[in-house]
Amino acid sequence: MPEFTDVDNSYNLWLLLHQVTDIIFYAREQELKEHDLPGMQAEVLFAIKAIGDKATPAEIARWLFRRPHSVSGILDRMDKAGLVRKSKDLDRKNLVRISLTEKGEKAFTQALKRASIHKIISALNDDQKKQLQSLLDILRSKGLKELGLNTRKVPYPKFKAS
Amino acid sequence: MPEFTDVDNSYNLWLLLHQVTDIIFYAREQELKEHDLPGMQAEVLFAIKAIGDKATPAEIARWLFRRPHSVSGILDRMDKAGLVRKSKDLDRKNLVRISLTEKGEKAFTQALKRASIHKIISALNDDQKKQLQSLLDILRSKGLKELGLNTRKVPYPKFKAS
Repeated sequence: MPEFTDVDNSYNLWLLLHQVTDIIFYAREQELKEHDLPGMQAEVLFAIKAIGDKATPAEIARWLFRRPHSVSGILDRMDKAGLVRKSKDLDRKNLVRISLTEKGEKAFTQALKRASIHKIISALNDDQKKQLQSLLDILRSKGLKELGLNTRKVPYPKFKAS
Repeated sequence: MPEFTDVDNSYNLWLLLHQVTDIIFYAREQELKEHDLPGMQAEVLFAIKAIGDKATPAEIARWLFRRPHSVSGILDRMDKAGLVRKSKDLDRKNLVRISLTEKGEKAFTQALKRASIHKIISALNDDQKKQLQSLLDILRSKGLKELGLNTRKVPYPKFKAS
């Protein structure tokens, strides 16, 4: 029998967390494939909708907890695909605002159908969902502290569809 | 007060799961930066060690639950950085075997120090860790089913350091 140390166990739990995130992400990508929409682009659409007309690349990156340069790459591709529009802020010319085009709005409506995520998460009952949330909350606070970030400055994931 | 539907709640729990994974990943990357080792390359080193001398790009992808083409890109960069060696299998010439170079072994030893992950996960007590594992197990099974994959064919994340 292999003896797992405490460090091994932490690492394995982390690998499991990572794997489950990947699994749900792939299921989501499979679902979005019929709309020709990569998974990260769908998440960016949701972020823009959540932020509203104040959306800037930096705000979107903060909302998605992604590095600004990776978000700007995604936004470039979405711009090329005609999903978003970049415009200069009228007051602060060096600020870029991001908004959805008509095609982007349509893609958002299609992405709103989140059957895969709903189906997978529904494997947990309500108590288990609450349990999972509170366990993840603990890891979130500790992780942000470890990164030297203020918990309040990182938007808590909350999105309302309508 | 916004009214969250069941679908919103599932989606928010998914966003939280995704965010926590990103947070721990970034903390890990920060830690590995002093060794000049990107986070995914560290995970590939662990996968090769776990698989042993039978490691092939496909096996590594399966172990990490990553798409083969994304793993082959990472392996190319690791080859250039002198961390891994690619060799043709003696029996099956079209099969590529991956092994660690001396520099790769050294990087692995450095990456073994997983202080950031250990520190973050240790915010949970033993009962909470078990709870989290069993909740993630439920999502893992359901997610793999959703993807049409056999749970037994996807390696369960388990790594022993020594």
